[in-house]
Amino acid sequence: MNEAQFIAALRTLPLHPGAEGLRDDTATLAVGGETLVLTHDAIAEGVHYRPGTDPFDIAWKLVAVNLSDLAAKGAEPLGVLIGAVLVEKAERFVEGLRAILTEYDVPLLGGDTISVSPATFGCTAIGRATTAQVPRRDGARPGDALWVTGPLGAAMLGFESGHGTAYLHPRPRLNDGRALAPHVSAMMDVSDGLLLDARRMAEASGCTADITLARVPIAAGAEPLRAVTWGDDYELLFAAPPGFVPPVPAARIGEMAGPGKAPLLLDGQVPEIALGYQHR
Amino acid sequence: MNEAQFIAALRTLPLHPGAEGLRDDTATLAVGGETLVLTHDAIAEGVHYRPGTDPFDIAWKLVAVNLSDLAAKGAEPLGVLIGAVLVEKAERFVEGLRAILTEYDVPLLGGDTISVSPATFGCTAIGRATTAQVPRRDGARPGDALWVTGPLGAAMLGFESGHGTAYLHPRPRLNDGRALAPHVSAMMDVSDGLLLDARRMAEASGCTADITLARVPIAAGAEPLRAVTWGDDYELLFAAPPGFVPPVPAARIGEMAGPGKAPLLLDGQVPEIALGYQHR
Repeated sequence: MNEAQFIAALRTLPLHPGAEGLRDDTATLAVGGETLVLTHDAIAEGVHYRPGTDPFDIAWKLVAVNLSDLAAKGAEPLGVLIGAVLVEKAERFVEGLRAILTEYDVPLLGGDTISVSPATFGCTAIGRATTAQVPRRDGARPGDALWVTGPLGAAMLGFESGHGTAYLHPRPRLNDGRALAPHVSAMMDVSDGLLLDARRMAEASGCTADITLARVPIAAGAEPLRAVTWGDDYELLFAAPPGFVPPVPAARIGEMAGPGKAPLLLDGQVPEIALGYQHR
Repeated sequence: MNEAQFIAALRTLPLHPGAEGLRDDTATLAVGGETLVLTHDAIAEGVHYRPGTDPFDIAWKLVAVNLSDLAAKGAEPLGVLIGAVLVEKAERFVEGLRAILTEYDVPLLGGDTISVSPATFGCTAIGRATTAQVPRRDGARPGDALWVTGPLGAAMLGFESGHGTAYLHPRPRLNDGRALAPHVSAMMDVSDGLLLDARRMAEASGCTADITLARVPIAAGAEPLRAVTWGDDYELLFAAPPGFVPPVPAARIGEMAGPGKAPLLLDGQVPEIALGYQHR
């Protein structure tokens, strides 16, 4: 059973209506007139980070990737639950938690601590929706413009240099997400590579994402084709009606068209390269 | 840094008021006039279950231990998020999830799937409080009677026989917990051993739990002193005012007294045995 088969099997379980058929990064839960946005991501040694990584950086990344999912929904974080592992230098894990929780003003709600090696950490982030319609990845429409909030490739450069904060300490775009959420047709964070995530949005929306490489903002020093197929930048990718002027810095990188020969075109062609980082 | 030091360090982080100082098994979150009850527990191969365990049983136990924490709060489950691992025979994991989610009428909200070995699974369970005051472990008062909802030792016998459903498929006492929640001074599930968990309740409450071994219901065939120091039974332990008659089957096993020479007495003596299963 591979991952796609496993997720297909999970979709046959009794699903909450807010699970959205397990086709999005978050779930919604209506409670007493509010809508909560829920997400859970795990990161494992040797899979999502290298053995020997400073536990400070593990903690930051663990929380950041979950807050980034809330950002793409325009949600205000209410708290996190942490599935922690008692690793060596665990005090650095606590300090990393302190740094990111303080930076984004998010309180710790609870969690669990276990001892296991190699370590797998989990985080559940809980947010409050700030719009009646929570943005989804499947809402893009033909004619929408396609935008990204910032340059791609900074995480890649940081990873390759071995000391880049863009890779070690990704910054969830919570303020951008909240400013954009009332206006966008679709939104998601770029975690696995711009091209791959754009194709996912187009596929979910029944559209074709037509991206012009020269329009994509690229981090200084990064090779463009590698930058758009590398992940971990956590910029927000969004589709919005053609006349929309974003209230935050963003670059218009292409358009959504109707369904065609492939869900993603790069400079008018079906790209014949790996679009991003899958199955990690 | 050991586990106690780690948790002490976590308590210095920005905590949500509903985190209760990380001193309980769950957190509460007030949302739109409702109170949610949140819990996260992880289970790891080689720590919480033996390598080679049927993934059906892993899935059941993963969800059951989290629902048991909701049961002790009298909470009605609203859904779960699963941090899954793509193990061999992953279809058995899905079937185990199906079995317990169907049994307790709990929908899947979402989660994450990773590939890592040895596997660590996470679950976040979200429930709705059914009482204005959510029972805590620290609410017991001198004079309260101490009760348990059912026999101890069944999980131990099941573990040792290698085929006992009491160990493989623990049953969270959700209905009992809801019936008891409006009336109890303190409540928790017995996950790590009756004596250990009773001492925890007494310590948190500033009391002495005085338990009479002959009053403790013991599973047929189990040796009493071993049964009360073995975990995984997931019965509910609760303290209630002396005149209280429980609306569900329960055995009165002792009393809460004021603080004394030790937080736990067994037949009037400070027990000199290991009280339960710690640090797993």
